[in-house]
Amino acid sequence: MLSELTGTIGSRISGSPQAAKAVEWGKRTMLQCGFDSVYLQPVMVPRWVRGSVERAAILDGDKEIPLTICALGGSIATPKEGIIAEVIEVHSLDEAKNLGDKAKGKIVFYNRPMDPTKVQTMEAYGGAVDQRGGGAIEAAKAGGVAALVRSMSLAIDDVPHTGAMHYVDSVAKIPSAAVSTAGANMLSEMLKAGKHVRVKIALSCETLPDVESANVIGEIRGSEKPGEVVVIGGHLDSWDKGQGAHDDGAGATQSMEALRLLKELGLKPKRTIRCVLFMNEENGLRGGKAYAEAMRPAGEKDIAAIETDAGGFAPLGFGATTDSVRFEKLSSFSGALRAIGADRITKGGGGADISPLALSGVPMISLEPENQRYFDYHHSDKDTIDKVNPRELELGAVAIAIFAYEIAQEGL
Amino acid sequence: MLSELTGTIGSRISGSPQAAKAVEWGKRTMLQCGFDSVYLQPVMVPRWVRGSVERAAILDGDKEIPLTICALGGSIATPKEGIIAEVIEVHSLDEAKNLGDKAKGKIVFYNRPMDPTKVQTMEAYGGAVDQRGGGAIEAAKAGGVAALVRSMSLAIDDVPHTGAMHYVDSVAKIPSAAVSTAGANMLSEMLKAGKHVRVKIALSCETLPDVESANVIGEIRGSEKPGEVVVIGGHLDSWDKGQGAHDDGAGATQSMEALRLLKELGLKPKRTIRCVLFMNEENGLRGGKAYAEAMRPAGEKDIAAIETDAGGFAPLGFGATTDSVRFEKLSSFSGALRAIGADRITKGGGGADISPLALSGVPMISLEPENQRYFDYHHSDKDTIDKVNPRELELGAVAIAIFAYEIAQEGL
Repeated sequence: MLSELTGTIGSRISGSPQAAKAVEWGKRTMLQCGFDSVYLQPVMVPRWVRGSVERAAILDGDKEIPLTICALGGSIATPKEGIIAEVIEVHSLDEAKNLGDKAKGKIVFYNRPMDPTKVQTMEAYGGAVDQRGGGAIEAAKAGGVAALVRSMSLAIDDVPHTGAMHYVDSVAKIPSAAVSTAGANMLSEMLKAGKHVRVKIALSCETLPDVESANVIGEIRGSEKPGEVVVIGGHLDSWDKGQGAHDDGAGATQSMEALRLLKELGLKPKRTIRCVLFMNEENGLRGGKAYAEAMRPAGEKDIAAIETDAGGFAPLGFGATTDSVRFEKLSSFSGALRAIGADRITKGGGGADISPLALSGVPMISLEPENQRYFDYHHSDKDTIDKVNPRELELGAVAIAIFAYEIAQEGL
Repeated sequence: MLSELTGTIGSRISGSPQAAKAVEWGKRTMLQCGFDSVYLQPVMVPRWVRGSVERAAILDGDKEIPLTICALGGSIATPKEGIIAEVIEVHSLDEAKNLGDKAKGKIVFYNRPMDPTKVQTMEAYGGAVDQRGGGAIEAAKAGGVAALVRSMSLAIDDVPHTGAMHYVDSVAKIPSAAVSTAGANMLSEMLKAGKHVRVKIALSCETLPDVESANVIGEIRGSEKPGEVVVIGGHLDSWDKGQGAHDDGAGATQSMEALRLLKELGLKPKRTIRCVLFMNEENGLRGGKAYAEAMRPAGEKDIAAIETDAGGFAPLGFGATTDSVRFEKLSSFSGALRAIGADRITKGGGGADISPLALSGVPMISLEPENQRYFDYHHSDKDTIDKVNPRELELGAVAIAIFAYEIAQEGL
């Protein structure tokens, strides 16, 4: 499934023709798997397009030293001729806030790395990603003309990593791009050497009108309590870099594969297990919100939601955000996961797509794979299927099948 | 360290000039780390050399279809003109034993795959590797002229994987080679189609006289009970394919790094922690035997031996082969490993290099990393440093440092 998705469709940013193809593919695949009630849940999604111009260079006297960048998702374009400005380096949003006049007319360069001493790469990501999301706002407030953000990656290489950034209506919009970690290090070295470094950036990205898209949904209907639903899912959209293989082609296909495995084994769960391929996780969460807000048939209730969106690596267990009684019950299912080494049930965990469900009290669960390499690939051209080990991917699907089935049998 | 070892020395089969360089490098590196009593323990090792001729082809009428092979370690050469013979496929040593006259004059093709349904790849390897080790003996007994063995890998590709094979004096020696998994599948399909497939194999490998080499040893001397020694180690030799990055450059450098970390942190263990870079794990185990058999100074005793030889992947915990009292004590150290996710202490475990120590009752412990990808690279040209994630490698070293230090403080 993942070979098909990445090989025949490739990356699939929300609103793109590729995303539309992915929706059709998801539905077709679920029908081929023989799931019950396969359908699309329509949802309007934003459409941001990278455009063909995306380049930067350090202007060092007469020399132009290329700087590998990519626009951050949601960024406006630069003027056609690009922006040329001096660079000022900061390491946090707070530091940008306190720049005073020093940022006026400059490109504000956010260069706080993901903390490599954090064992959990998700934690390192969480500790740095505010620069990507909010960097343009604080830079603009300080009078900056563009924001350049160190890529969210623990690998030092020349590959830029995109991701969502946002604006607020009350602050001027300025272009925002990610620079590769190697490029960021080079730029920082030049600034440390006391140079007045000027950078030229040109981006032609733009936001087009919203587009209709859909969540793709299929299920195995519960034999005893069909109204109690265990949701399993990943997101079908991706960034427009690489193939969206780990993020989150892996999760989308693991979710379908988990359900397919149960069907192939002839297992008939007492409660319904529903696979949702969410649309628009990366830049809007419209699919997740639409699923949570949809009217349910009388008597229907989601009793748990499991998301897999941390890469198709070897599964180590599940994280769960719920009350202590339910957590104990979930922990008691770990025995069935031991044989595949995925029996670590930890507190905390969840996912963006299922977070709107959690607002109304649905226990929120995430597959927790081994994660050291995830951010090497995440949101970049390196996120291709050759980085996914088929056995690790498959073990994740098996883990979800086991855990979802346990919940469907025992309730929660 | 691993970049140096793989980049400046590369693969380092026992007895080769590269292995000699690796010994010097290991000693120099330990001295640079400031370990106590850095020294070489001399040991004679076998020297097998692959030679420049190594090719095979399927002869299909007029056509020659190339078959990707490599000599198995220890194999004799073919005659200069190669061997051309019909192929007969078997799936086990027992099947070969029962071939009767059918194998006479033929190439016996062992094609039982590593079982992909085993979650533990080590178990899948253990279930197939007898074909590689003993295939030539059984083939020769049945009158075969060569043994061709499916590569020990779970990946289906065109890369052959070498490894040790052996002869016995009472049976004629015949050449033995590994064929890539893709090549094995192709050959098997042709045989299934009822064709009388002939294969041509030419190998120029040879066994030269034994060479003097050495284990490299360094330690941090215990402050209270220096005679009680915790051994940590991996093996310095590798096969002559790729760079021996995961097998076992990773383990050799993790062992040194673990000790270096303790030194850098200024920790003074109560008992001695000794790093041993074993020579000749792959095709003789001479280093492991020599270390175990060496005379000890009065009052010195190895109280535990930890080996890391399962790839530089994210550490999940340790396996231990010892009595139940010691196992409980080792298990009680898991708390310190929790923060890095390496706290699974499981029964069983050990390693080839430390197995001679275990014969005299020394508890035998192995670092247990995540292992799904290991055999994709193992003993092949794919075992290069780009397959090693620096964070995963480093976490393994941290795990060893923690566990060895706990044992050194608390005793066993």
